[in-house]
Amino acid sequence: MNDSVAIVTTEYAHFETELRLESGRRLGPLTIAYECYGQLNADRSNAILVAQAWTGDAHAAGRHHEDDRKPGWWDNMIGPGKVLDTDRYFIISSNVIGSCKGSTGPTSTNPTTGRPYRLNFPVVMVRDMVRAQKLLIERLGIDKLLSVVGGSMGAMQALEWGILYPEQVRSIVPIAGTGRTSPMAISLNALARQAIYNDPLYKKGNYRPEHPPADGFALARAVGHISFLSDASMDLKFSRRFSRMDGMFDFFGKFEVERYLDYNGNSFVDRFDANSFLYLAKALDLYDVAWRFDSLEEALSNLVCPSLWFAFSSDWLYPPSQPEEVVEELQRQKKPVAYHLIESDYGHDSFLVEPEKFIPLLKEFLDGL
Amino acid sequence: MNDSVAIVTTEYAHFETELRLESGRRLGPLTIAYECYGQLNADRSNAILVAQAWTGDAHAAGRHHEDDRKPGWWDNMIGPGKVLDTDRYFIISSNVIGSCKGSTGPTSTNPTTGRPYRLNFPVVMVRDMVRAQKLLIERLGIDKLLSVVGGSMGAMQALEWGILYPEQVRSIVPIAGTGRTSPMAISLNALARQAIYNDPLYKKGNYRPEHPPADGFALARAVGHISFLSDASMDLKFSRRFSRMDGMFDFFGKFEVERYLDYNGNSFVDRFDANSFLYLAKALDLYDVAWRFDSLEEALSNLVCPSLWFAFSSDWLYPPSQPEEVVEELQRQKKPVAYHLIESDYGHDSFLVEPEKFIPLLKEFLDGL
Repeated sequence: MNDSVAIVTTEYAHFETELRLESGRRLGPLTIAYECYGQLNADRSNAILVAQAWTGDAHAAGRHHEDDRKPGWWDNMIGPGKVLDTDRYFIISSNVIGSCKGSTGPTSTNPTTGRPYRLNFPVVMVRDMVRAQKLLIERLGIDKLLSVVGGSMGAMQALEWGILYPEQVRSIVPIAGTGRTSPMAISLNALARQAIYNDPLYKKGNYRPEHPPADGFALARAVGHISFLSDASMDLKFSRRFSRMDGMFDFFGKFEVERYLDYNGNSFVDRFDANSFLYLAKALDLYDVAWRFDSLEEALSNLVCPSLWFAFSSDWLYPPSQPEEVVEELQRQKKPVAYHLIESDYGHDSFLVEPEKFIPLLKEFLDGL
Repeated sequence: MNDSVAIVTTEYAHFETELRLESGRRLGPLTIAYECYGQLNADRSNAILVAQAWTGDAHAAGRHHEDDRKPGWWDNMIGPGKVLDTDRYFIISSNVIGSCKGSTGPTSTNPTTGRPYRLNFPVVMVRDMVRAQKLLIERLGIDKLLSVVGGSMGAMQALEWGILYPEQVRSIVPIAGTGRTSPMAISLNALARQAIYNDPLYKKGNYRPEHPPADGFALARAVGHISFLSDASMDLKFSRRFSRMDGMFDFFGKFEVERYLDYNGNSFVDRFDANSFLYLAKALDLYDVAWRFDSLEEALSNLVCPSLWFAFSSDWLYPPSQPEEVVEELQRQKKPVAYHLIESDYGHDSFLVEPEKFIPLLKEFLDGL
């Protein structure tokens, strides 16, 4: 484990301020869960913010306990000698607001009622998440981030950082991202939503934590899971194999891929909150970098730092044509931008599964800053 | 309406025989619902079988009543002067077994109990559907079909006809088909299944027809619906428009595309049976032309007639690479085969939405027989 950040701890920053949200509502006080890896240098110029995807958390690298079965979600990227080199950079990973992984979200206590927010939590946009992250970065004494790097919803956060705080970022790296969520992606989230709403245990969001809408939530997760994969990756992993436990002609018999989706969905229920899942889905659906601007052109005109974009050939959730639309507009505006279409069979999840395919390009980019 | 077959009637053929199914179970007696358009010629050589997709029925053309709002599902293809020209051809359209549209299926009466089959209905494969169709074709006094034409599940039936009954078909036209269902397509059906199973009203298939598992079934239909569309067609139709009835920051607020999926799903519940939907989904999932053969090569070696294949560029349910695998094997075997990749933005549904894009090619093929 000499390339690991080893044992890490999630920390919690509290802010008494109220954040004015895009919706017009206010949210506060705020807690932001975060982890840091590496050392901030003397002139505070080596900080890189790693931004999470939908159901991620602050725990991006290392282990909380020596016997943890798995390390953080981007451990193959973060550590001594790795691309996000903790010998050189100070890596910050924070949990977004709206999540259930330590930052203020629907499971947090609503200060006006003393009870969990649940559906009284305000709808948040990715832009709101980034404003909350800004509070954390300031608290850590950092004026300018060397980079903001993230995949999927993390890519949206990276782009928002570049647009909102052009003076506070020296670069952004949106990976498997999009400039705005397409109706196809929205539709898939709509299926997930409806799966949860249909569960009688959902009770319009007022389920007790010990009695979550497990069946609906597991199905919702399966919808998401499918959208993160690809035909090719499923074919590789499951092909058309039928479950050895079932008869092929049993009405309730299942293919291996079905059992996998079931298993994955059901285990997810134990580690995530359904309302949080829905709030974050909503943030994804509402995402449009041109929000509150007159156009994509105007929004992107605010970006001044270099940006490095990666898209994956088999990603059908945010297909390459979507980030390409943003990249082409940046090129038109003569902004410093680099784009790489990575051949990978692992769909949207490629940024987690095959980072080795873009790590050399990312390393070169970071070295050049 | 001079290009319409005008007023038509669904007819019902009854067979006292039992069909031996691929599962080993037997099904009978059988009823097959069907419609015919045009006249069978003297030497009975002008019959074309039109094969339905998943939730289709025998009513492919014309109207049952003058005031029917919509004609049959492929009315733009079938009629005097149309590509499936009822002045020249005798068109037969039959409902598959397992469906709820008149042919024997889970809503039919189980002769051994006197009550509806429901989940006592046997699992059927596409091959079984075709064997049942063969009974109908014989009953109509036809020894050899001029062609079998169908889209999606209809394409599977067309291919099965060519493999199973090489002496009984002069050509086949599989449109938007596949040689075997991929794990991605299976996964999407798995979501639909689970959506229905999760509905407390499903009661393991023993719901009363007047109390169907409406919420789960509507969601299942929405899953299917999405898989029939494409990012481009959704973008064209809905873009990212938010419902004018909802606040964008309302937790339960919806995008237009969501409202459409809801509406479509809910209206479907009134016109289809959930168990039938599940049996047909199963038939789709089990589909593999190589079933009971040693290989795809061996299966296809049985095909002797010319085949004409169409795939659609934006079809992600059965993407062009899938029929291409079959076509390439047929080419390797020097079989008479033609393949056209049609540029269309309408996804899997292109075969219903933009038939004008392949009609001239189909006409030329049929004229050449």
